[in-house]
Amino acid sequence: TENYRIAVIAGDGIGKEVMPEGLRALRAAATRYGFGIDAVEFDYASAEYYTAHGQMLPDDWFEELRTFDAIFFGAVGWPDVVPDHVSLWGSLLQFRRHFDQYVNLRPVRLLPGITSPLAGREPGDVDFWVVRENTEGEYSSVGGRMFEGTERETVIQDTVMTRTGVDRILRYAFELAQTREKKHLTSATKSNGISITMPYWDERVAAMSTKYDDVRVDKFHIDILCANFVLHPDWFDVVVASNLFGDILSDLGPACTGTIGVAPSGNINPDRTFPSLFEPVHGSAPDIAGKGIANPVGQIWSASMMLDHLGETDAAAGILAGIESVLATGGDALTRDLGGTGTTASLGEAITAAI
Amino acid sequence: TENYRIAVIAGDGIGKEVMPEGLRALRAAATRYGFGIDAVEFDYASAEYYTAHGQMLPDDWFEELRTFDAIFFGAVGWPDVVPDHVSLWGSLLQFRRHFDQYVNLRPVRLLPGITSPLAGREPGDVDFWVVRENTEGEYSSVGGRMFEGTERETVIQDTVMTRTGVDRILRYAFELAQTREKKHLTSATKSNGISITMPYWDERVAAMSTKYDDVRVDKFHIDILCANFVLHPDWFDVVVASNLFGDILSDLGPACTGTIGVAPSGNINPDRTFPSLFEPVHGSAPDIAGKGIANPVGQIWSASMMLDHLGETDAAAGILAGIESVLATGGDALTRDLGGTGTTASLGEAITAAI
Ligand SMILES: CC(C)[C@H](C(=O)O)[C@@H](O)C(=O)O
Ligand SMILES: CC(C)[C@H](C(=O)O)[C@@H](O)C(=O)O
Repeated sequence: TENYRIAVIAGDGIGKEVMPEGLRALRAAATRYGFGIDAVEFDYASAEYYTAHGQMLPDDWFEELRTFDAIFFGAVGWPDVVPDHVSLWGSLLQFRRHFDQYVNLRPVRLLPGITSPLAGREPGDVDFWVVRENTEGEYSSVGGRMFEGTERETVIQDTVMTRTGVDRILRYAFELAQTREKKHLTSATKSNGISITMPYWDERVAAMSTKYDDVRVDKFHIDILCANFVLHPDWFDVVVASNLFGDILSDLGPACTGTIGVAPSGNINPDRTFPSLFEPVHGSAPDIAGKGIANPVGQIWSASMMLDHLGETDAAAGILAGIESVLATGGDALTRDLGGTGTTASLGEAITAAI
Repeated sequence: TENYRIAVIAGDGIGKEVMPEGLRALRAAATRYGFGIDAVEFDYASAEYYTAHGQMLPDDWFEELRTFDAIFFGAVGWPDVVPDHVSLWGSLLQFRRHFDQYVNLRPVRLLPGITSPLAGREPGDVDFWVVRENTEGEYSSVGGRMFEGTERETVIQDTVMTRTGVDRILRYAFELAQTREKKHLTSATKSNGISITMPYWDERVAAMSTKYDDVRVDKFHIDILCANFVLHPDWFDVVVASNLFGDILSDLGPACTGTIGVAPSGNINPDRTFPSLFEPVHGSAPDIAGKGIANPVGQIWSASMMLDHLGETDAAAGILAGIESVLATGGDALTRDLGGTGTTASLGEAITAAI
């Protein structure tokens, strides 16, 4: 039987609380579907590690982590101890870039048992993917300050798009759209205002679309696109976006379907030259950390996405079905954000039992 | 009596259809509240003008328009004829920059008679302002392409923030917050990912907040802030944001309150060194242009904001009250997007009658 070596990094805040539930579900799926999980836990990419070592990661992180089949990640960020840009650029954003996880893939799906903040929307009405470019664009580290501390102070940061970077994310998005029933791709742009990089993005979308005749393509400027996520979430099938726009859309989408507490994500290297990383969307959530009330569904659903990536499609579907059945049944095991009275552990146990 | 010289630019698409209703309401308010409106109409900043002249504006636009007390603007953009970045950078974005309209001010308010897409929200629940920086930031024209047309193609665009630009928008936002009951300011950031300009923005917010002890300040990263507009629109009072983030939030906010068709905006030069510009948020809407069905409320509400800026606060309040009473009463005069069977003109006439 297959045995998968998984690097486990719980990180900060509620990452530490939801990770055990993610692992519980993962191990249950392994037993049920007949494969092995060899999980190795790391304490880095956390505020504690930073406090002890003055950096977020050990020097050999790249060599160490690259040998794994995948990285199962919790959340990073604890601003009382480390400024967010230091903790994120010192860990997660390095993984994305050095392991060339150029696709950030996030489902937006209205699940049974979860109340949408949008009036009159039912499970099935909303079901699409956000495909986010994950290595370049607005998230660059190029730029700096001039005339610092004076009235003339000027701060510049570059957005950088490359043909390689743009084309490969578009290709991934077009191919994903081809696998879907509606075969519909929406591109997020802002070429009316961001007048250099965004017209380029539009050009590449137009060029790429000639190679995928079977995919219907449209585009919206990011401002009205965000509005349409709220007004017409049923319009979307696959949405492709730059790093920043994808970041925004993949928090907004889950919010429109009820809560970002349940949303998973894959930071995927489709070429499989390095391990991919799977993490919940919610982040470290300092405001509720330490209380044992965090919703573990995002972490567990991330385990499902990880198994899908590893080729264990039945197990991936099994975990998702387990999540859906527990949410649909409802009851006390649910965490408070879902209307229950349960804890992180009670919900994790219920889902694991359903797998 | 006061006589205001107003430059009227209808522009493209539904801008041409809603502008007559904006003027109708403006003239009614002038009669009712006892001041004069001297409206001069210009045909530039439109696709027709571009087709005839090869540019969006005449060479002397700056000298011509600067003599007015305010600019009353419809919408610009007709991508079948002029690419959006050409039409926008050739007109509206020039006005904002050259007339130093550094504040883009947009209300987010749930009005009576308008159904919110958010479940269970009532008029009064949502009532805040988005204060958007309107001259710098992500909307720069600095950057370019290298290795064009090859696999190495690289496209760069700078985001530029200056101490002057950031501090003055923050000052405006803090002062606006001081006039409000809740005295609460929320800053939009993304300092965890956009690691050079956004930490600078945060620093300036922190520095400025020491001067406004009576204002409670918090901040959210733009991704979760968008999510919170949907999940908790009642959390906000005044939201301050960079050019791009403000653009996104001020379309998303109105979408959460029902429709961007009714949302107005002011492009304001608070120092009054040049005229300010008032326009609806909706844009030229090619999909519904020419049918006479566009909602004129955004244009009429923009007239109210313009009068407020000119010091005619009673007339401004009178127009807004007229809008609210017609929306609350409902009926056939309403346009289809509001559930009625009326036209742009019928709704404009109803509101004018109520003023
Ligand atoms: C048309 C476009 C350039 C403009 C902007 O992004 O500023 C519009 O969306 C707005 O909000 O006024
Ligand atoms: C924490 C932050 C840097 C990160 C991002 O912006 O990419 C997060 O919001 C995400 O979406 O994974």
